[in-house]
Amino acid sequence: MTPASQTQPIGQMLIAGAAVRGVGAEIHGFDPTAGIELGPGYRYGDASHVDAACAAAAAAFGPYRSTPAEARARLLEAIADGLVAITDDLVARAHAESGLPRARLTGELGRTAGQLRLFAAVLREGSWNGARIDTAQPDRTPLPRPDLRQRAVPLGPVAVFGASNFPLAFSVAGGDTASALAAGCPVVVKAHDAHPGTSELVGRVITDAVAASGLPPGTFSLLNLTQDGAITLVTDSRVKAVGFTGSRAGGLALVDAAARRREPIPVYAEMSAVNPVFLLGGALVRGADLGRAFVESLTLGSGQFCTNPGLIVAVDGPGLDAFIDAACEAVAGSAATAMLTPGIAESYRAGVEALTGQATLIARGSADGDAAVSCRAALFSTDAVSLLGSPTLQAEVFGASSLIVRCADFEELRTVAAGIDGQLTATLHADESDHDQAAALLPILELKAGRIVFNGWPTGVEVTHAMVHGGPFPATSDSRTTSVGSRAIERFLRQVCYQNAPAALLPTALADGNPERLWRRVDGELTRD
Amino acid sequence: MTPASQTQPIGQMLIAGAAVRGVGAEIHGFDPTAGIELGPGYRYGDASHVDAACAAAAAAFGPYRSTPAEARARLLEAIADGLVAITDDLVARAHAESGLPRARLTGELGRTAGQLRLFAAVLREGSWNGARIDTAQPDRTPLPRPDLRQRAVPLGPVAVFGASNFPLAFSVAGGDTASALAAGCPVVVKAHDAHPGTSELVGRVITDAVAASGLPPGTFSLLNLTQDGAITLVTDSRVKAVGFTGSRAGGLALVDAAARRREPIPVYAEMSAVNPVFLLGGALVRGADLGRAFVESLTLGSGQFCTNPGLIVAVDGPGLDAFIDAACEAVAGSAATAMLTPGIAESYRAGVEALTGQATLIARGSADGDAAVSCRAALFSTDAVSLLGSPTLQAEVFGASSLIVRCADFEELRTVAAGIDGQLTATLHADESDHDQAAALLPILELKAGRIVFNGWPTGVEVTHAMVHGGPFPATSDSRTTSVGSRAIERFLRQVCYQNAPAALLPTALADGNPERLWRRVDGELTRD
Repeated sequence: MTPASQTQPIGQMLIAGAAVRGVGAEIHGFDPTAGIELGPGYRYGDASHVDAACAAAAAAFGPYRSTPAEARARLLEAIADGLVAITDDLVARAHAESGLPRARLTGELGRTAGQLRLFAAVLREGSWNGARIDTAQPDRTPLPRPDLRQRAVPLGPVAVFGASNFPLAFSVAGGDTASALAAGCPVVVKAHDAHPGTSELVGRVITDAVAASGLPPGTFSLLNLTQDGAITLVTDSRVKAVGFTGSRAGGLALVDAAARRREPIPVYAEMSAVNPVFLLGGALVRGADLGRAFVESLTLGSGQFCTNPGLIVAVDGPGLDAFIDAACEAVAGSAATAMLTPGIAESYRAGVEALTGQATLIARGSADGDAAVSCRAALFSTDAVSLLGSPTLQAEVFGASSLIVRCADFEELRTVAAGIDGQLTATLHADESDHDQAAALLPILELKAGRIVFNGWPTGVEVTHAMVHGGPFPATSDSRTTSVGSRAIERFLRQVCYQNAPAALLPTALADGNPERLWRRVDGELTRD
Repeated sequence: MTPASQTQPIGQMLIAGAAVRGVGAEIHGFDPTAGIELGPGYRYGDASHVDAACAAAAAAFGPYRSTPAEARARLLEAIADGLVAITDDLVARAHAESGLPRARLTGELGRTAGQLRLFAAVLREGSWNGARIDTAQPDRTPLPRPDLRQRAVPLGPVAVFGASNFPLAFSVAGGDTASALAAGCPVVVKAHDAHPGTSELVGRVITDAVAASGLPPGTFSLLNLTQDGAITLVTDSRVKAVGFTGSRAGGLALVDAAARRREPIPVYAEMSAVNPVFLLGGALVRGADLGRAFVESLTLGSGQFCTNPGLIVAVDGPGLDAFIDAACEAVAGSAATAMLTPGIAESYRAGVEALTGQATLIARGSADGDAAVSCRAALFSTDAVSLLGSPTLQAEVFGASSLIVRCADFEELRTVAAGIDGQLTATLHADESDHDQAAALLPILELKAGRIVFNGWPTGVEVTHAMVHGGPFPATSDSRTTSVGSRAIERFLRQVCYQNAPAALLPTALADGNPERLWRRVDGELTRD
């Protein structure tokens, strides 16, 4: 193993503590700002590497899940500490590979470390056990009631697919890895091709933390894989769940592969959303201010956020006109900014072109950038009937592109809300005078989105207990969970019931006397006694 | 609508409060004890009936889910009361259609009513909301933290498929219906062909309770459907989740259909299990007693339980010999008892025949019964290597059939535990002297089963808070949930986050001051303040 002080990537995968060179085609990171390929080269792993990582994960699962929660909490903290310790090198490499500003990446690193520490706190608080006890009723007739106790156990090894747009917070040591490790699941990460060096650096921190914690090396592996290799990973019988953040096509391919397994497994794919923003009449009195604030949210990070506001819906009138004028002016004045990869920039251009054929282009950002990698913000407008009739107009364009839908009246606005697909977020701008309309929209939006934002913008996802980063299909493949926030640990757990277990064989979480002082549901009542 | 005093079935489906005669092939209930067809005839509904039920459910969903939890609790209680009020007629009809003893069905009716009342209590207790609040941090830098609040909302209309073997507790007003209605989801039930009259009687009670409660009629519908009709129901875009208890083939067909939808939906299919029982050495000192108790569990209700003990695993020796001798004697002395339907009896015979080819038949129950419908208990034995090499030997035979696996030593017994499929239950007979071996088995069994029973038998599923009736595939299609017990409500809910919502627009469950006195997680801490 390369020592922890080595903070430059050297082109290797990490399989259960061992650095391994791949054997397939060579890939490189790419600096979209400088337009140059980055060393070192990486080679894809093949089926034997997938097999080795899965075998090690399966072997690690038993001992890893039986560690005390405190040991897993310390592992997560050691990973957080290790990442923070190499901040400068990590941010530099992530900046080179993504073109994202250093300040943003420094913040993202803080978020990533904070996320790991949040799950450490979740482990120590203990409610994740879902402990429940129904006491025996030996005198019940006609039959005595047995003693029943329930707690959570982890599903097994988890395959994690990092996202391109958050090379730290939604990647190798991102939310899926943190929540799976917290739950007691070993993790096999497929590194995103857009940031192989960042992935390796982060993977080395995790590998070192696993070793320093005396945990089984198979607790963590990091692979470079082709699309076929990714399917091999998801269909490996030892993998028991999948976390993914990325495109709809990519997510659905994993969902399909998992469904075709002999034993189907849950796939948590966070895919696509246009994150509709509804501007109500009272709020539109401040139309120009809202228009400027909207474009700030739209163009943040070249619009490369799952929660980017891609659809604005409002009733026609002077307020909307003022909003549009201000937004067009702001878009026209926006600089061309580098996108994460040439491929993403190409998809963005194609998406904007497709919209251009079906909606009215009303503003475009500066063209002063490298055409091969830059994002020229684009703003379109259309009417409600056109939107509802066109899958193209409803599709996400990843990047700073948004579509304003002019509605004839509130009824039409409500029809738009009811007609769109599932979303990660829905946003309402509403003053007090709009509350009746907002109250009429809310029941619709609750069924369409995982998070409803009032008088703000959807970009910006807090890592807390009440966050939901999820939503109905096609925003995600499983609306019942969240990929951000403390409830994410539940994705990788299932409940087991113990009937009349002898005290000596009960897990501590279910023991008489509640030695861990957990919140437990005893005969239906929450108690810490 | 026929008045509630009408407690004889008249051959109709119930669509959103209206009694409707089907149009397809005619089917009848069948009395397996008397061997006669029962009136009235039922005709299958077609796609237009599915459409009508789904349209009504979709229309009912908004108003139904926005009722206070108390209104839904009262509906569940009204259904329970309505069922109890027609106990005699209902038990008589269920007895005629299933051949199950009246005493058992009376108990099952009590369980069904109790289950409905449990979910009423769950609704009033309020933790099902999953309420969480992260308070705003307006002074946080660089950006203020918004106010974030999370609560559960229901998924939408649910399709429920009742089981043949519990014509009350796992059928029209069974656990899936109770938990879905509790969650705020309208329900469309496909009546099981084995008990159409019982289904209609129960459906009328629900229909009347919905009407008397002033709830939208589309809250409940009951359809008679062919297999194709069932797929039409599951693939209707307005259906958002499916509950099923039945065969593996039936469950997998629904899982496949749901996965092929444009919007995939969760399918909770409880399918097949052999419910292994491990007899450890210390416990086998009482081998003969255990053998007799085992056969009581095996032959209960002609063995027609999802939790029937279909596999016994133990180390060879005098204790196991005593167990086998006593079990063989008890099986040989067991009466032939009617099975639910001629089709199930035929499947049972075929299953026993398949086992006969691969394992040693060591005991058979009395042949004194109507060969077309009766269950002659069957006991087989084999060795560990044969079991692990044969899918046939590991497959469930629905009915009173079980297979004893003789292991050479504990290591082999552990290999069997690790090698079998996912199960609803796993049972351990272990004395104190066996605790080391039990402790070595437990981590394996926790990953194989939803419930681990100590020193008892798996038949008998308590309806409580800590129960898990579920388990890894192929026991169910989704190991993360339970179909029995109060956590079943979670199947039909998802969480939504409200960011900076004005107080006037917040759901009561999330309101400041906690007017409903719910347990809520505020800034990570559970509190009722």
